[in-house]
Amino acid sequence: MPSQMGNRVQLQIFGESHSSAIGMTLCGVPAGETIDMDALQNFMDRRAPGRDATATARKEPDRPEFLCGVVDGVTTGAPITAIIHNTDQHSRDYEKLRHVPRPSHADYAAAVKYSGYNDIRGGGAFSGRLTAPLCIAGGIALQLLAKRGITVGAHLHSIAGIPDTPFDAVALDPDTLLAAGKKPFPVLSDEAGEKMREAILAAKKDGDSVGGVIECAILGMPAGYGGPLFGGVEGKIASALFGIPAVKGVEFGSGFASAEMRGSVHNDPFTYKDGKVVTTTNNSGGIQGGITNGMPILFRLAMKPTPSIAMEQNTVDLATGENTTLVIGGRHDPCVAARAVPAVEAAAALCILDLLTEEN
Amino acid sequence: MPSQMGNRVQLQIFGESHSSAIGMTLCGVPAGETIDMDALQNFMDRRAPGRDATATARKEPDRPEFLCGVVDGVTTGAPITAIIHNTDQHSRDYEKLRHVPRPSHADYAAAVKYSGYNDIRGGGAFSGRLTAPLCIAGGIALQLLAKRGITVGAHLHSIAGIPDTPFDAVALDPDTLLAAGKKPFPVLSDEAGEKMREAILAAKKDGDSVGGVIECAILGMPAGYGGPLFGGVEGKIASALFGIPAVKGVEFGSGFASAEMRGSVHNDPFTYKDGKVVTTTNNSGGIQGGITNGMPILFRLAMKPTPSIAMEQNTVDLATGENTTLVIGGRHDPCVAARAVPAVEAAAALCILDLLTEEN
Amino acid sequence: MPSQMGNRVQLQIFGESHSSAIGMTLCGVPAGETIDMDALQNFMDRRAPGRDATATARKEPDRPEFLCGVVDGVTTGAPITAIIHNTDQHSRDYEKLRHVPRPSHADYAAAVKYSGYNDIRGGGAFSGRLTAPLCIAGGIALQLLAKRGITVGAHLHSIAGIPDTPFDAVALDPDTLLAAGKKPFPVLSDEAGEKMREAILAAKKDGDSVGGVIECAILGMPAGYGGPLFGGVEGKIASALFGIPAVKGVEFGSGFASAEMRGSVHNDPFTYKDGKVVTTTNNSGGIQGGITNGMPILFRLAMKPTPSIAMEQNTVDLATGENTTLVIGGRHDPCVAARAVPAVEAAAALCILDLLTEEN
Amino acid sequence: MPSQMGNRVQLQIFGESHSSAIGMTLCGVPAGETIDMDALQNFMDRRAPGRDATATARKEPDRPEFLCGVVDGVTTGAPITAIIHNTDQHSRDYEKLRHVPRPSHADYAAAVKYSGYNDIRGGGAFSGRLTAPLCIAGGIALQLLAKRGITVGAHLHSIAGIPDTPFDAVALDPDTLLAAGKKPFPVLSDEAGEKMREAILAAKKDGDSVGGVIECAILGMPAGYGGPLFGGVEGKIASALFGIPAVKGVEFGSGFASAEMRGSVHNDPFTYKDGKVVTTTNNSGGIQGGITNGMPILFRLAMKPTPSIAMEQNTVDLATGENTTLVIGGRHDPCVAARAVPAVEAAAALCILDLLTEEN
Repeated sequence: MPSQMGNRVQLQIFGESHSSAIGMTLCGVPAGETIDMDALQNFMDRRAPGRDATATARKEPDRPEFLCGVVDGVTTGAPITAIIHNTDQHSRDYEKLRHVPRPSHADYAAAVKYSGYNDIRGGGAFSGRLTAPLCIAGGIALQLLAKRGITVGAHLHSIAGIPDTPFDAVALDPDTLLAAGKKPFPVLSDEAGEKMREAILAAKKDGDSVGGVIECAILGMPAGYGGPLFGGVEGKIASALFGIPAVKGVEFGSGFASAEMRGSVHNDPFTYKDGKVVTTTNNSGGIQGGITNGMPILFRLAMKPTPSIAMEQNTVDLATGENTTLVIGGRHDPCVAARAVPAVEAAAALCILDLLTEEN
Repeated sequence: MPSQMGNRVQLQIFGESHSSAIGMTLCGVPAGETIDMDALQNFMDRRAPGRDATATARKEPDRPEFLCGVVDGVTTGAPITAIIHNTDQHSRDYEKLRHVPRPSHADYAAAVKYSGYNDIRGGGAFSGRLTAPLCIAGGIALQLLAKRGITVGAHLHSIAGIPDTPFDAVALDPDTLLAAGKKPFPVLSDEAGEKMREAILAAKKDGDSVGGVIECAILGMPAGYGGPLFGGVEGKIASALFGIPAVKGVEFGSGFASAEMRGSVHNDPFTYKDGKVVTTTNNSGGIQGGITNGMPILFRLAMKPTPSIAMEQNTVDLATGENTTLVIGGRHDPCVAARAVPAVEAAAALCILDLLTEEN
Repeated sequence: MPSQMGNRVQLQIFGESHSSAIGMTLCGVPAGETIDMDALQNFMDRRAPGRDATATARKEPDRPEFLCGVVDGVTTGAPITAIIHNTDQHSRDYEKLRHVPRPSHADYAAAVKYSGYNDIRGGGAFSGRLTAPLCIAGGIALQLLAKRGITVGAHLHSIAGIPDTPFDAVALDPDTLLAAGKKPFPVLSDEAGEKMREAILAAKKDGDSVGGVIECAILGMPAGYGGPLFGGVEGKIASALFGIPAVKGVEFGSGFASAEMRGSVHNDPFTYKDGKVVTTTNNSGGIQGGITNGMPILFRLAMKPTPSIAMEQNTVDLATGENTTLVIGGRHDPCVAARAVPAVEAAAALCILDLLTEEN
Repeated sequence: MPSQMGNRVQLQIFGESHSSAIGMTLCGVPAGETIDMDALQNFMDRRAPGRDATATARKEPDRPEFLCGVVDGVTTGAPITAIIHNTDQHSRDYEKLRHVPRPSHADYAAAVKYSGYNDIRGGGAFSGRLTAPLCIAGGIALQLLAKRGITVGAHLHSIAGIPDTPFDAVALDPDTLLAAGKKPFPVLSDEAGEKMREAILAAKKDGDSVGGVIECAILGMPAGYGGPLFGGVEGKIASALFGIPAVKGVEFGSGFASAEMRGSVHNDPFTYKDGKVVTTTNNSGGIQGGITNGMPILFRLAMKPTPSIAMEQNTVDLATGENTTLVIGGRHDPCVAARAVPAVEAAAALCILDLLTEEN
């Protein structure tokens, strides 16, 4: 089922990088919910390029136009469809990419799958631009969650190996959680952020790119949502996150580090705090047996370096059957992780909203 | 949707650790496929405890009884249901766990979700024992894939930080891929395996447990399966893997390490080899833009240390509302990763078989 | 997706007429629900043959054995699996049917779909026997609905054109609704029932069979469940009903008769009754715009005459490529409609229970 | 799942009668399919009002604007989204309908479900106008089916009890099947059509409305698609048809009439014709055991009379809690069945296209 996620709150994303519009349909949002359109636009703007010198110079205003499902800013209970018209497109010579696939792009795999009929302009359906409709849906979800006392936030955990201050898995508070999202460059430590920006610009100067890790947390999610086996919260969130282009790894709580721990260190002891059951550590990332336990939900995801680099690369020419080289022109992000932060929040918020509709 | 996975080849797992039986229903398997029941039992035996001194002493013969969908060893096209009767159960004092939850087990989260009505004996629906039905289904899938030229194999990438020889992401051959699975302790390097076993037994002696990382690869999968966004192969496989108890992280190709690479290093250059398009590195793990590119599919997953440890732990008593301590009795694996290796192959095989039913 | 229905309360049926067992897995039933096993068996017995001289002489005790999901008669929240062992089977010469398909049976269509590998004994996966697992699931659903003030009942609206007293679409009360189900032959008017039985026995004597119409109603369903377009209640229920073998038509409220009415006659005027909004007629069958309106939900379904008749019939021999004739031996129901009444209640109850889990 | 249908070829409809646009997203259409946009517009025009004096005088040009998934008239394999801007809207006094629900409309049921927040203008999400996006998707599906040798057509089987010449369930040919769709008033017999039109205009003159029955057939569908139980073709098609507003009954083959037949009459004997297995009658409507048998698929559906009539009707005032009367103004179809004929073809075509993607 391409481009869809969710059981009860269902998102369908459509569009290609240079099609006349991209957009999304979100089903299952309750009727009577007021959407703050200014707050939604602010959220969209966090994803848009041009906020920071490290991002692409392309202009994508990303103003969603709501076609249905909302009357006077209030949801009607019917599917919500919003689109963004594509305007600032340079659809010049993409045809070459049909037979000279860019390394580590979807070009070759897509050519096989779609027999060469896929829209290759600007990356087509594989473009990071498709995270804009994800942010429309997720921005709505974030507003609904906030009304229910649930806060979702993310930051750059590291770029090119340079670490930001990590979230405190036990004592994280909503203000800290939301702090990075309010900055042009989404980090907790401005000092670390400056080093990251330098690393990104250095790579750009070299015609190269860097990757990064994003950390996301969810506060206020009650215990008791999810289930064992394939009904677990980790699988649900991971499945959504891998839908974001360039994500190559997802871990919850201590994640891969837990594989090197002993049980006596990894286990999260329960204790009473203000009459409520909490854990004194949170290596589980708020999920045990696939079910939320009331602690902060915490996860990280790895984003590979942008595959579009200016350096010459080895590749093949599918038309001639010969090896060749390729230099990719155009305007590209030397690091997509910063702009992906709101997309991660969006995906997480949609998963959580969907979980909330499940009965206990 | 608890306990289900797959779109066209659909698996439903049912059962609780101490219910009269556990089992699975697998829909969508084509009619006319011969199932080698001996080979299936051999596969099941890899998961069963008692193969190696590092595993639990419980006896679980795990002999599937097929109820329907198979006549004289040949599939009929109808749903295949097979069950395993539960026999070697010690259903003594599990009641205490209802109000004194074991740290990092599902006990507390499940008690909230199911209002205390969940079957708590032996871990109930959260038991690692539920990977036995997964292995029935996966064992069938592995046989169908083998007939189609696709090989799936896994090994212990590391235990307690002790690394095995990793798979070669480019030059991996089927024999190497399947080598670890033929040993009682599934590693490529016997020397590394011996160190891992020592680490496990040391932890056991301390009443403690260790975690590990499993690496899995798929050879022979053609290019062109999967899709962008939520239709991607990574999300599909990750969602299945997180259904295996104790998995806390999943990464494809270079995974989290890719976040520290530059694009010029991470990008996989295309080249022709014997007239076929291949890549000279495989940091993508065989998946680009969510679609298979014909290279080996490669991923790793982190398993946390077994939460059941013999040492005294801090927890709460939900009945009295007081903090308390708990010592867990019973027979438990000091490391579940070794026995989880076939479960990982099973989950991967089911995902791949499901993908193969999708048209290009 | 073969053999599955439901979004949140999901039923998976498995088994073939002569496989070692048939059964069902029901997911999504809340934890903590007590199941009255005697009442469930009574419900199962309504479907079992041998209750009435008009039904087949085969003995099918149909005693469900619960494998999991229920402890001491109380649901655990995990998937509920129950099976019925097949015992009274006569698996003699079914092989002939592989190449000499019975008219209006699934034999030919299934042979094409499954390339001849389907289990043909006793009708295999197409047997009416598969309504037994449906009744296990539906019997559980009926008990949950009863606790929530919702009553589901059905009767033979007509057999061979002989009509029973129809339900009153406006003034129907629970006692009348359940009256037919308490009789060996499920009709409201015993006089009509006697005529129907005579028609069935007359057909049987001729080596022939008859069809019938079943009417079903649901009382106590609140207004506001369902939705427009493909989210409508009619589509949901119809889809489940067509899963019962031999059903060839489904209509709601006035159904096909409404096509001959004028709007002024068909429209159901609203009025207040005891402070509650009701309609003074119920041509809509309790559903408007795909959504329940609080009135009795009412529908009828047509069952074709049993295709297994003793008379000689024309057919083909797929082995020789010649036309031939066939005389079907064995014990068959001259009319399946009577025994299908509880299956209809079961399917309806499962749909309603699933709808109730949807939020408004 | 509101507004969605299909497993592999998935349709999502969105929009409300007076929202800024209505539209659809169709996923799963193979890449490389050329869409004849003129033929699609011709198909859309069959649904549009104003073709015949019996239909509403509203103007709805219904020109789909494709946003994505199609480049130069060829599908890319990505989701196809097309919208229709709403223009000729009279959004005057709909507010009254919030508290004075129209009899047999969705007004009351929707007010309960959506707590009064649903878009009530023009019927909102419940408007027959939403069959326009269905026709975009279905029009595409019809073109794909035609290339695969499958023809879908429908006609008015009866209006107000006046019958058209029915389809011949055995000897139906593609030309006859498509004949009605080429006329402004979709019947086979022009004489019958004239009588139907008179009946419609007579009802209109009385401020009343009439219902009708639509018959649809599918030629060229190969044997072997579908499955037993809830995987059956009847359930799949019925579920889609009940998604069309005003449909209250669906029957396949002999349908409800089969309930009055004996098996010896109803059973369809097999015979060889030109080396191919066919049946000499087709009471099964081309489906046996839920699986296509290669004969014409044939079904009928009942449409209730348009609930919007000019005559004064009894209803309630939800604001005052009093009974009241209502006179509905505006322009309404005295019979929606004629314009629903292409919508029925559309729904059927989408189901068949989805079935074709299933493997045997």
